[in-house]
Amino acid sequence: MRRLGDLAAHVGATLAGDPMFEIGGLCGLSDDLPGTLSFVGKPSQRRAALASRIPAFITRPEHALEGKHCLLHPDPDLAIVELARLFEPSRLAYAEARAIHPSAVIHPTAVIGEGSIVGAHVVIGEQVRIGARCVIQPGVVVMNRATLGDDCIIHPNAVVREDSVLGQRVVLQPGAVVGGDGYGFLERDGRHIKIPQLGNVILEDDVEIGANTTIDRGRFTATRVGRGTKVDNLVMIAHNVQVGEQCLIVAQTGISGSTHLGDRVTLAGQVGVTGHLEICNDVTVMGKSVVAKHVLRPGVYAGIPIRPIAQWKKAVARLNALARETGGSDSGQADEA
Amino acid sequence: MRRLGDLAAHVGATLAGDPMFEIGGLCGLSDDLPGTLSFVGKPSQRRAALASRIPAFITRPEHALEGKHCLLHPDPDLAIVELARLFEPSRLAYAEARAIHPSAVIHPTAVIGEGSIVGAHVVIGEQVRIGARCVIQPGVVVMNRATLGDDCIIHPNAVVREDSVLGQRVVLQPGAVVGGDGYGFLERDGRHIKIPQLGNVILEDDVEIGANTTIDRGRFTATRVGRGTKVDNLVMIAHNVQVGEQCLIVAQTGISGSTHLGDRVTLAGQVGVTGHLEICNDVTVMGKSVVAKHVLRPGVYAGIPIRPIAQWKKAVARLNALARETGGSDSGQADEA
Amino acid sequence: MRRLGDLAAHVGATLAGDPMFEIGGLCGLSDDLPGTLSFVGKPSQRRAALASRIPAFITRPEHALEGKHCLLHPDPDLAIVELARLFEPSRLAYAEARAIHPSAVIHPTAVIGEGSIVGAHVVIGEQVRIGARCVIQPGVVVMNRATLGDDCIIHPNAVVREDSVLGQRVVLQPGAVVGGDGYGFLERDGRHIKIPQLGNVILEDDVEIGANTTIDRGRFTATRVGRGTKVDNLVMIAHNVQVGEQCLIVAQTGISGSTHLGDRVTLAGQVGVTGHLEICNDVTVMGKSVVAKHVLRPGVYAGIPIRPIAQWKKAVARLNALARETGGSDSGQADEA
Repeated sequence: MRRLGDLAAHVGATLAGDPMFEIGGLCGLSDDLPGTLSFVGKPSQRRAALASRIPAFITRPEHALEGKHCLLHPDPDLAIVELARLFEPSRLAYAEARAIHPSAVIHPTAVIGEGSIVGAHVVIGEQVRIGARCVIQPGVVVMNRATLGDDCIIHPNAVVREDSVLGQRVVLQPGAVVGGDGYGFLERDGRHIKIPQLGNVILEDDVEIGANTTIDRGRFTATRVGRGTKVDNLVMIAHNVQVGEQCLIVAQTGISGSTHLGDRVTLAGQVGVTGHLEICNDVTVMGKSVVAKHVLRPGVYAGIPIRPIAQWKKAVARLNALARETGGSDSGQADEA
Repeated sequence: MRRLGDLAAHVGATLAGDPMFEIGGLCGLSDDLPGTLSFVGKPSQRRAALASRIPAFITRPEHALEGKHCLLHPDPDLAIVELARLFEPSRLAYAEARAIHPSAVIHPTAVIGEGSIVGAHVVIGEQVRIGARCVIQPGVVVMNRATLGDDCIIHPNAVVREDSVLGQRVVLQPGAVVGGDGYGFLERDGRHIKIPQLGNVILEDDVEIGANTTIDRGRFTATRVGRGTKVDNLVMIAHNVQVGEQCLIVAQTGISGSTHLGDRVTLAGQVGVTGHLEICNDVTVMGKSVVAKHVLRPGVYAGIPIRPIAQWKKAVARLNALARETGGSDSGQADEA
Repeated sequence: MRRLGDLAAHVGATLAGDPMFEIGGLCGLSDDLPGTLSFVGKPSQRRAALASRIPAFITRPEHALEGKHCLLHPDPDLAIVELARLFEPSRLAYAEARAIHPSAVIHPTAVIGEGSIVGAHVVIGEQVRIGARCVIQPGVVVMNRATLGDDCIIHPNAVVREDSVLGQRVVLQPGAVVGGDGYGFLERDGRHIKIPQLGNVILEDDVEIGANTTIDRGRFTATRVGRGTKVDNLVMIAHNVQVGEQCLIVAQTGISGSTHLGDRVTLAGQVGVTGHLEICNDVTVMGKSVVAKHVLRPGVYAGIPIRPIAQWKKAVARLNALARETGGSDSGQADEA
């Protein structure tokens, strides 16, 4: 239980309500849980907030809710994120017991930075360097010569293969694989000869990689994911791909070999990108789309293959009209989602 | 080797054949293996069964096969499933040796139910509760405060993250990840700030999760998969998704955040569902489709984006006709598959 | 550092340059790294090679580059692969220390072939047989009765479930799952009854399986991947599928149950194949396509659903024209990629 007065102070909010009122946790507006604190990001949510059983909200100063305890803050979305950190339960396995679990196998040439925690049954190979305050959860394998910066969190059973380089504050969700061999074979006489994959993977500062996502090592040089880019679950990033900074690569997207993405590129879920392409800065591609040519202009794209979103919407409407000429028009779906 | 008489008795079938005849295993009709028992579910399979080398079959009473040993049963499909359990080899690693392998690392505050087996190199965190007769295979990690009901089977190297709640008889195939962080980031000043994911994952009774599938924890509350739902391999279920009971979510499907599925929903392979949608009970979506709006009416849907199956078939026919006007009509494919 | 004279001798190339000249590594033409050796596979790359900072190249005898050290070889692509093996860093965790890491848990009935290396925290079950010179990296689990041929490499945290059979020189990338239960359920009274999956998985000689790919065991008999076939990351191969020899199954493709692929079939990324189909030899399916009927004729196919590539290109052109009638024609993309 935490007092509203303390929470308001923590995020620099003005309190319109009882500073001694206690809440047990946070929730979303639709969760509608008594005894919690929630937030109103848009004016359109005010009515639902007022009608809810939630006793306390973070709102903008101009949107205080009558009958609710309110923390008034100019950026409620940000303030709730900061408060959420206070409510996060400990993720440290055995942190209290010891920094390095005795079952971890750490090569004598490896260096583990100050304050780092290594969980049970972790394996750390030769000449690995791990920075300060990292959390290496149980079952993780970090192979030879890999390096991790400070404050990285590697979740259970993730794998960091040889020579990978992770920057500061990199997070790998469970089962993520960094540095698997690129898919490279040379056909001769009807057989596929494996091409050695001599490169590595570089994940720059503040990159997060989702559960069971795979990022292959480069053929000669590095596959790279730029600073601040966040990759969702079950994404495939092939060898030699270069992903820029602050990109969002959503679940089950695949990026084929040697493609380069600029900064602030968003690929929504299940997008496919063919190899050896350039995608410029500030491109957004809608879910399930296919990118099969260079994208030279910022904007929003959709389709198989993609076209600018306005063209795509017209094409869909046109094709729908063609299709409808032959059938009923009741789609069984809502017109607005 | 097992005698037909014993097998007939086991499933309550009437035997038309030699009760002392012995078979070494089961097979499908197309496997056509001598010395085995198979089954005929549909009358159309009778001819192939008669022509096969398989000596024994389970059939409906009215479909006995001349010259074959027959177990007559009103539901051959069900009877063969019951018999198959007799032929299943032991999956228990080291079961004979001891219930808890000495290499497993189990926090002293964890509770393991009676008759449960914990394999080599398993890690079980603080305050975990595991029910009776569970099988935790080698390399599994169960993080702090997770709870498992009775009779769960967790296959090798699966991960159950903090606070997850698994009901009775839940099965996780190898590499499945339950409770990874939801993909939630807040953009401020061009950077993505991680939104703490305070919720958990709830898998209700009789849920099965496929190999390397990922189910993310909720932001504030639970991501939930309802009773009896079966999820195939490499599926992505995002944070706050609610899946109803007895659903089938087929391989490589992705369900985006906060979407709600009713009961008995089938999503065939590689379907994509966008976030914050409602899909009602008894909806089936064909493979590779995209669901981008609420689905308010039961039925079968297909397409990118989906429409009712009859409309979709007409649209495909129409578009095919348009396309054919410009080219030959030989598709290189069978007309009927 | 290696001398060009030695490298030329290693691959049987004629040297046009200084045999004592030393290089530190290999690179691709676009990497443009000083102090390295690269290769020119096509005449069109000559200009970039001449302009690069790369001092040494492998070229065809007729394509020697003035001012560069050249290894002249009739097949530069093959020669660079052979040279790359010389530069591959050791992948063996703890190889120098001992063949079998003391933390590995190996059942007394398992047999490990001569020269095989077993990494830390590996688990090997009852009656497993592992051939000679295999490398079993840390965290791998090989369950009961599985067999591996000689010279297999199993990367970290991969799982080989019960009864799987791997041939010679099979490679599993990290997190690959071989032998998970097939997705088989029988519906009775609104509930899904699990169908025991009694079969196994057979991976023939020289098969490679990508990171976090899943290959399910057959219902009664084997799921099989033929000799020399290479499977990329995050692919799903369902129960009873038969994949022929020398196939290429690219990332995030899914093949549904009981489908048979011939030899030399290529499925590009994110392809979906429905169940119980036959695909003949020498078929190529472009990325994101759907195969929903038998494919009886060799060739290249594309589309949702697929048609022969020439038909598909015409259909796309036609649909683009229809769509364009309603909008501008500037696609924001390059015409040629």
